[in-house]
Amino acid sequence: MLAFGCAFAALAQTPPPPVVSPEVRPDDRVTFRFRAPNAKEVALSLEGASKDLAMQKDEQGVWSVTTEPLAPDFYGYAFVADGVHLIDPSNPLMKPNLLNTTSQVHVPGPALPWEVGDVPHGEEHHHFYKSAVVGDQRDFYVYTPPGYNARGKQTYPVLYLLHGFSDDASGWTAVGRANVILDNLIAQGKTKPMLVVMPLGYGAPEILRLGFGAFQHTELRDRNFAKFSEALLREVLPRVESAYLVNKDRNSRAIAGLSMGGSESLLTGLNNLDKFAWVGAFSSGGISEEFDKDFPGLDAKANDQLKVLWIACGVDDRLIELNRKVRAWLDSKGIKKVEVETPGMHTWMVWRRNLVTFTGLLFR
Amino acid sequence: MLAFGCAFAALAQTPPPPVVSPEVRPDDRVTFRFRAPNAKEVALSLEGASKDLAMQKDEQGVWSVTTEPLAPDFYGYAFVADGVHLIDPSNPLMKPNLLNTTSQVHVPGPALPWEVGDVPHGEEHHHFYKSAVVGDQRDFYVYTPPGYNARGKQTYPVLYLLHGFSDDASGWTAVGRANVILDNLIAQGKTKPMLVVMPLGYGAPEILRLGFGAFQHTELRDRNFAKFSEALLREVLPRVESAYLVNKDRNSRAIAGLSMGGSESLLTGLNNLDKFAWVGAFSSGGISEEFDKDFPGLDAKANDQLKVLWIACGVDDRLIELNRKVRAWLDSKGIKKVEVETPGMHTWMVWRRNLVTFTGLLFR
Repeated sequence: MLAFGCAFAALAQTPPPPVVSPEVRPDDRVTFRFRAPNAKEVALSLEGASKDLAMQKDEQGVWSVTTEPLAPDFYGYAFVADGVHLIDPSNPLMKPNLLNTTSQVHVPGPALPWEVGDVPHGEEHHHFYKSAVVGDQRDFYVYTPPGYNARGKQTYPVLYLLHGFSDDASGWTAVGRANVILDNLIAQGKTKPMLVVMPLGYGAPEILRLGFGAFQHTELRDRNFAKFSEALLREVLPRVESAYLVNKDRNSRAIAGLSMGGSESLLTGLNNLDKFAWVGAFSSGGISEEFDKDFPGLDAKANDQLKVLWIACGVDDRLIELNRKVRAWLDSKGIKKVEVETPGMHTWMVWRRNLVTFTGLLFR
Repeated sequence: MLAFGCAFAALAQTPPPPVVSPEVRPDDRVTFRFRAPNAKEVALSLEGASKDLAMQKDEQGVWSVTTEPLAPDFYGYAFVADGVHLIDPSNPLMKPNLLNTTSQVHVPGPALPWEVGDVPHGEEHHHFYKSAVVGDQRDFYVYTPPGYNARGKQTYPVLYLLHGFSDDASGWTAVGRANVILDNLIAQGKTKPMLVVMPLGYGAPEILRLGFGAFQHTELRDRNFAKFSEALLREVLPRVESAYLVNKDRNSRAIAGLSMGGSESLLTGLNNLDKFAWVGAFSSGGISEEFDKDFPGLDAKANDQLKVLWIACGVDDRLIELNRKVRAWLDSKGIKKVEVETPGMHTWMVWRRNLVTFTGLLFR
């Protein structure tokens, strides 16, 4: 009997022997392998590594490299074959992205906050709607904590959690593992039960067409930020507060995000202190340096309204200087904040840890 | 100002000029392009094509091919570079799969059921739980139709919709576009509002390690089917019926699936007619041909309980003979069914259309 009629004709041909990749070794070194018999140069691009790692080819045409031991975590990676970034065809775990899809490798570490635990799990709700503000069909995700009962009476605070440039609305769960992290921290009593709302972060989605240099186009950048805020406040937030059992006061609303989403959190949060009392910015980027223009009228009166303003960046992130400038400007206005400089580059390893720390402060 | 600190060191290097792929032309021909300057042979593996299409290399090292006009739909595809299947690095739209991730190209066709319409949208809920039956952490998705109100009184029927071998629980939405299809058909009055539950389809997930020949291992195959049914009936179904406003009678429960999931629908549905009145099998595969053993005691008395038994397969699917054998055995038992042979191979283009037709019959 034929087991399955294959959708893809080529699968019916004799395949080459399978390549095992990635292989996580007991000492947490990881071996990556990629078949490319005719490529002249293949390297491994690994999230958090300061340069690509050269790979060596064997007589079967399989390129490989073994890393030093990696700290337990999830790492994005790609193979760079003669200059082209490719995912690992032997690995189903991907890191979805609108500009460059990569693969992910999991180096397990028991009891880390992003490891699926034997604890009650929340749910992740995917919503779809037509945006009048932006004019497109778009989406957002809502994490509901374990025990959330739509037919019950308990109400919850809400964290609005924003992804970075090139991510889509799934970034904070598919890569950031926000739902797993919240499940674990709530079970341990380290974080209050809360809803987490993860909207699509583009006010002008055409900005993606310009790639990673997009934020030098100031008109598009400004429109992207402005329309994002408008869609969040006029469309996503009212839908969430109508559909879910949530507290609707400013002390029960937080906003945080990474990179582009960090800037969006500052712009939306600090300019709408009537709506948000908790603001977190992780490795913010893309914001202009015309802070007086971006935050009109912001001054030390904000200290009465801000429960926490939390600004973090990795010291090896190229955005550390921009973040120090943001903090210096806030200082000049007399605005209190928590300043955090962690190890690390512009990576999800940094942002998962930011989320762990920041959510521990919220709604207390 | 540096726009963003890049997570991946290689992105900071001068990239080669961008490759545009796929390019859908006004006449629905599609051009695929892939940079691989040193590859000796690159071909396009396209869902629904009976053989791979050879690609030609230009002086920049970019391989390309242009298809004949494609009927509007979503098509999976991969580049086969010197024997290795790769996704298209220029295209963020992927077709997730546990054995071979591919890319997807969208050839738009206005008003087709799988095109996002300007209609009310349902939600998609992702649930996570620890399975006592299988012993792992696993997931299922629930589509709720537009207007579903967890705090309201209206109750709905439920379709349990099962993916195929190598898919994960997201297959029917990420590739099958079941949520988009239901949104559209419900808006047009062609399908009754219903919940759609999409569980992980493996009773013995280790079967994936054996790849596409796995179903020749009869012990593992039988355990995979048996434990899937048990997890569905003992774990997923009770959770759904406790958490959602659904009707809990057999006439309000349907089960259907594709390929492995088609066999699971037959095995679970026909052996549990006290629970399901509607059964659909799309391009079923992986089932043994020992039907007397797989369906003990099944006879014409089932006709009183079955509202619809619907068995479909594409005539160019290698599984068409197996499906004809299933039908002949059911005939020998005097069991009534709807027999459908459509154009097509073992592809999602067939299954999207199966879903459109089958859901139109349900709960009437």
